[in-house]
Amino acid sequence: MGEITARSPLAPAGFPDLPPVRGVRFASVAAGVKYAGRTDVMLAVLEPGTSVAGVFTQSATRSAPVLDCQAKIGGAPEGPAAILVNSGNSNAFTGRFGQTSVQEIADAVARTTGIATDRIFTASTGVIGEPLPHDRIVAKIDELAGSLNADAIQDAAEAIMTTDTFAKGAAASVDIDGTPVTIAGIAKGSGMIAPDMATMLVYIFTDARVDQGALQTMLSDLTETTFNCITVDSDTSTSDSLMLCATGVSGVDATDHSGFRNALRGVMLDLAHQVVRDGEGATKFVEIRVTGAVNDADARTHGMAIANSPLVKTAIAGEDPNWGRVVMAIGKSGAAADRDRLSIRFGDVLVAENGWVSPDYCEEDADAHMKGQELSISVDLGLGDGHATVWTCDLTHGYIEINADYRS
Amino acid sequence: MGEITARSPLAPAGFPDLPPVRGVRFASVAAGVKYAGRTDVMLAVLEPGTSVAGVFTQSATRSAPVLDCQAKIGGAPEGPAAILVNSGNSNAFTGRFGQTSVQEIADAVARTTGIATDRIFTASTGVIGEPLPHDRIVAKIDELAGSLNADAIQDAAEAIMTTDTFAKGAAASVDIDGTPVTIAGIAKGSGMIAPDMATMLVYIFTDARVDQGALQTMLSDLTETTFNCITVDSDTSTSDSLMLCATGVSGVDATDHSGFRNALRGVMLDLAHQVVRDGEGATKFVEIRVTGAVNDADARTHGMAIANSPLVKTAIAGEDPNWGRVVMAIGKSGAAADRDRLSIRFGDVLVAENGWVSPDYCEEDADAHMKGQELSISVDLGLGDGHATVWTCDLTHGYIEINADYRS
Repeated sequence: MGEITARSPLAPAGFPDLPPVRGVRFASVAAGVKYAGRTDVMLAVLEPGTSVAGVFTQSATRSAPVLDCQAKIGGAPEGPAAILVNSGNSNAFTGRFGQTSVQEIADAVARTTGIATDRIFTASTGVIGEPLPHDRIVAKIDELAGSLNADAIQDAAEAIMTTDTFAKGAAASVDIDGTPVTIAGIAKGSGMIAPDMATMLVYIFTDARVDQGALQTMLSDLTETTFNCITVDSDTSTSDSLMLCATGVSGVDATDHSGFRNALRGVMLDLAHQVVRDGEGATKFVEIRVTGAVNDADARTHGMAIANSPLVKTAIAGEDPNWGRVVMAIGKSGAAADRDRLSIRFGDVLVAENGWVSPDYCEEDADAHMKGQELSISVDLGLGDGHATVWTCDLTHGYIEINADYRS
Repeated sequence: MGEITARSPLAPAGFPDLPPVRGVRFASVAAGVKYAGRTDVMLAVLEPGTSVAGVFTQSATRSAPVLDCQAKIGGAPEGPAAILVNSGNSNAFTGRFGQTSVQEIADAVARTTGIATDRIFTASTGVIGEPLPHDRIVAKIDELAGSLNADAIQDAAEAIMTTDTFAKGAAASVDIDGTPVTIAGIAKGSGMIAPDMATMLVYIFTDARVDQGALQTMLSDLTETTFNCITVDSDTSTSDSLMLCATGVSGVDATDHSGFRNALRGVMLDLAHQVVRDGEGATKFVEIRVTGAVNDADARTHGMAIANSPLVKTAIAGEDPNWGRVVMAIGKSGAAADRDRLSIRFGDVLVAENGWVSPDYCEEDADAHMKGQELSISVDLGLGDGHATVWTCDLTHGYIEINADYRS
């Protein structure tokens, strides 16, 4: 959680060309909350009638802005709405002062934009336990409100970064009854990454119209197999926030449209993968597929036990197809497993089956797979139809450097 | 889990001077199971009537010798007994061949010593998933049986080491009704360390007499607050075994003797701490005290969440009194916490209270504590009387080196 380092080797080639989403405008500014020489506050303003859904950290020590958002989400979508996010300070474990900061910022946005405070959502990300210098943010609200622009989503993605080494964005387009509908989202996060839910901040926008209740259900459901299936370090942020805003400006209702739902899941999964690809110190992106479990929940438990095991993650860093550690992780997960029915593959290479190393196993083949940057580990438990896929990265010296050498 | 490296900076000055325990004799030998130029098999032979209790890993993928010990433990303490342990290969995830290896070794010990096979306990520790070359061990049984010696416990402690950087032993003496009773134990373990139970191999011997059932209850109870309260890396071995053998040769019954129980707990805690002090890559020994929880189980959950957090452990490595990460770990643990009632100390330094940094907090004081080798983190939840103490070490480049660079 230290200083921004070189771009992750797993990063995409560049920020994607995100289309504007009708009904959403962005602005960002350098307020000097903590960082110098970069933007650190972003404001998004949403057209009247926008439905807003949210999923937040389950941490018992969640931050003041998370508590505030949870209280506001689900309200009637009347009038315009706004989202204001700062980086550099998480306003977490800041006692009553933390609530005051949230209130001061929301009041300032309300004064400038005329938006009701119960439709103003804030988030803060960065160091835990230091008072947020909210005056620096309040002083910039007029400037932000005066520079809103539908095409400024990339700047917004950059303003919310902390230890991220690249800005994260994804988009999709769906045709609904002949009308194109757009989905575009941004995310930040690279450490303290584990469910629930598994990233720090994600904002997704669409110009489709979706009922508030349906939007929340859709977001919560899709989170389970996307953001809640990634892990960098098994640690859970106090600030995790995922919001989905449907402006409805396209005039098309996507409430029960399966194509829209699939496209939304694609955007969420893309952003979730980008968070893993920016995992602190990561050099390998790893997909872990678990099949044959008693049920899906057990499959996910096994997958996360493998994905969070320091011994598995260091073996991956060392390009070692160390399936013994995969067996160990399955054994400790607490979910049902039968040692003698397990099979394990690294990539396409069958390593172990029937509780024993495969008779056809050739370590050179597994070694070759492990040298790649995009790895897969597949486990079949041979017990039932439960399945899950989770994503993680390796555990390297880079993680230690970032986290031992700098104050989070 | 790689090659043996320099002695841990947290190691005791040397192996303690362990007294002989009447009724137990040891031998060790270099059988070449995997390592060259060192001993790798130890045999302990116990007088007739010895009570034997055991606690084993809860892993669903536990090893063949663990399954065999679990089947044998609790039998009537008739005739002599034996324990044979090899290092270099864990005989885990080795299918039916693993059971055959256990049987071949037990049969060979039975042939040579005349001990019944259901009183012969074996253990194996080392690489997972490779067939155990049991013939190499069987070939050395005569030599082992011919060199048994009551004074050879240190050699036995050395023979069972894998990635350990020092041999681990502890002892205590208790006077029961005017007769001295001895307790002495050995342990190995430095990675893949987490409950249940939290070490790889531990053998403790006493010449007290304790009923089989009472011995098992005592061992299980004391394990909860000793070996099950340590963690190095949150990973759980497939081979964890803890055995306690009471030969009764002193002629004194210690079944209900509280002094004996306390001395035994002291030996167990000493060995558990030595395992943490040999944690892979460890440079700091950390005691985490949790008080004020709703109950003891919640306190332990919070303690282990802190002790296992990669972000807390890397902060400790960096000598950073990063209490924000302690708050994060409490928040994610799943046990009850109220952000605004928390207080946190590093050593004696009150860092945070009432959900906020303490007004008297001086970071220089906390920094000074963190520079030590023996650290403590105290958390009071302000909710009830539940308390627990757990022990861990820091997460350093050394851990990555040991586990990424060598095959376990």
